[in-house]
Amino acid sequence: MNLREGAGSMANDAAGSWIGFDLGGTKMHAVLFDGQYQVLARRRKKTRGHEGADAGVERICGIIEKLCDEAKLPLKSVAGIGIGIPGPIDMEAGRILGAPNLGWSDVPLKAILEKRFGCPVAVCNDVDAGLFGEYTAGAAAGSRTALGVFPGTGIGGGMVYEGRIYRGKHASCLEIGHTVVDPNGPPCGCGRRGCLEAVASRLAISAEIAKAAYRGQAKHLIRVAGTDLANIRSGTLAEAIAAGDEIVEEIVRIGARRLGIVLAGYVNVLLPDCIILGGGLVEALPGIYLDEIQNELKNRVMPAYTEQFEVKVAELGDNAGVIGAAAWARHQLSSTGPTTLPA
Amino acid sequence: MNLREGAGSMANDAAGSWIGFDLGGTKMHAVLFDGQYQVLARRRKKTRGHEGADAGVERICGIIEKLCDEAKLPLKSVAGIGIGIPGPIDMEAGRILGAPNLGWSDVPLKAILEKRFGCPVAVCNDVDAGLFGEYTAGAAAGSRTALGVFPGTGIGGGMVYEGRIYRGKHASCLEIGHTVVDPNGPPCGCGRRGCLEAVASRLAISAEIAKAAYRGQAKHLIRVAGTDLANIRSGTLAEAIAAGDEIVEEIVRIGARRLGIVLAGYVNVLLPDCIILGGGLVEALPGIYLDEIQNELKNRVMPAYTEQFEVKVAELGDNAGVIGAAAWARHQLSSTGPTTLPA
Repeated sequence: MNLREGAGSMANDAAGSWIGFDLGGTKMHAVLFDGQYQVLARRRKKTRGHEGADAGVERICGIIEKLCDEAKLPLKSVAGIGIGIPGPIDMEAGRILGAPNLGWSDVPLKAILEKRFGCPVAVCNDVDAGLFGEYTAGAAAGSRTALGVFPGTGIGGGMVYEGRIYRGKHASCLEIGHTVVDPNGPPCGCGRRGCLEAVASRLAISAEIAKAAYRGQAKHLIRVAGTDLANIRSGTLAEAIAAGDEIVEEIVRIGARRLGIVLAGYVNVLLPDCIILGGGLVEALPGIYLDEIQNELKNRVMPAYTEQFEVKVAELGDNAGVIGAAAWARHQLSSTGPTTLPA
Repeated sequence: MNLREGAGSMANDAAGSWIGFDLGGTKMHAVLFDGQYQVLARRRKKTRGHEGADAGVERICGIIEKLCDEAKLPLKSVAGIGIGIPGPIDMEAGRILGAPNLGWSDVPLKAILEKRFGCPVAVCNDVDAGLFGEYTAGAAAGSRTALGVFPGTGIGGGMVYEGRIYRGKHASCLEIGHTVVDPNGPPCGCGRRGCLEAVASRLAISAEIAKAAYRGQAKHLIRVAGTDLANIRSGTLAEAIAAGDEIVEEIVRIGARRLGIVLAGYVNVLLPDCIILGGGLVEALPGIYLDEIQNELKNRVMPAYTEQFEVKVAELGDNAGVIGAAAWARHQLSSTGPTTLPA
């Protein structure tokens, strides 16, 4: 089968196999799917971003090859590869502009992988991939405008509008975590001050909780995690709350409310019909996040809009990113035809 | 010529005549265009919203008929009518949900006009129409994502994304003027407090200036307008600034900066490549608005985004609304085929 013809014909039916790749700051997660998103093979591996982009790209390629080996499929039967990246990218060029969590910058990933594997490759932001996964097969299915917010170590945001990832001309966007909520607030990793992420991410919440623990106000938490931010994971917070650490719950609720206030502003402007909450904090504490965010939205969204949307917790866990990346590759291929492949 | 065939064929070439209608709170403005947006006829008339929706719809119909009379074109040669409405609407159904400036609510305008004139009718928000006009033939031409903000009596906002008006499932949106900038701020017409519109619209700025004038700080302004808000128009502010009323300039600049701060937040999330400034205040004082807004954007937009957009002043004046409404009708017809017409 001629590769180019193969890729083209795949766009017009539901068959063919597709690779979805979630390139995280800590781990890589990749799945080879059939046309119905059934898993043919799955691999996870540490990212080791610090070893540099060349070594990282080699690790990516190794995983893709192993997926095909495991499924006993020839590499050239793969119809397309989608890959989600933790950082700003040029979606059209498929280039990583800069990925602070990896320490990589200016990597023409699409071109490299297309040359290596001879099939179309689509590169997207990892948060966009996760939301597109939920749109494809999860909580956002059937929505016209899905707005996603994913509080974890940072706070990611994304939007799927009329079946496509919303994006700028030369970059991914929807950086909800970098909404400035307090111009005199604490420094943010982006170099500015008082971003939502700097006051409501897991890292920001954990720092407040570590202070409370140090003061002796979080008895359960200090026993299991001490005051070291590296030990205070989302799951640790959920355990401490379940065990009765009231100050932990209070601090988490304050963060959730700040998220809700920012979200209300975006609902007034973007009028999503579906709001997806995901990320480590929501996975660990879905009740608190749903409760506080719905409450802020009820009080702050314009009256004409209050009945026009639903708030939902993400359903696919860490499958969202791989499904979304594969689905975006399929979408790109079907909407634009096969990309020009290297001869 | 069969109407439906006529309308269908119009979508595929640049010919045919189209009506763009700008239904304002104070005046109606309608133009009959040929396929190249050359003006075949133009009418303006007071809106008289207080006389009720039935009388208002009759006035609209009368204007449409007169446009055709004036151009000596039979009504049935009109390929489509687009109409911009000052208030929230259901774009798909073509229904006015509520228009506070007219005092109308729940008017199925599309259905009424399609039945009366036998051609497809598209209804959109008036701010969206203005921005779509700038996208079609003005300052936003060629942009991928155009974000528009129009400070005047209120503060309108709109977005054209990938060639289409951005909208929610059941309503127009982009209510940038109702971004809450100070939860303890002054009451807003929407029923909440501290919206951008409540602190930076012409009405809000004029109230501050009237206070200053009352205190004797705005000598030129008080001579021409007194302290009555009804007399302090955007042009009055420009005259007072030109004549040396420093306090007037200072208050206007504070308002423009607040607008810039809010816009910076939306640029970080929506990454428009083109930002259009229009509305009465910008038309009267383009230099101040460009200056202050560009400055706030420079300081507040994320570093990776600062080179990715242009800020421009709207070019079409009050032609933007009529061109945009007609262009949206054409766009709707070409993208969905002719709407189902009454038998």
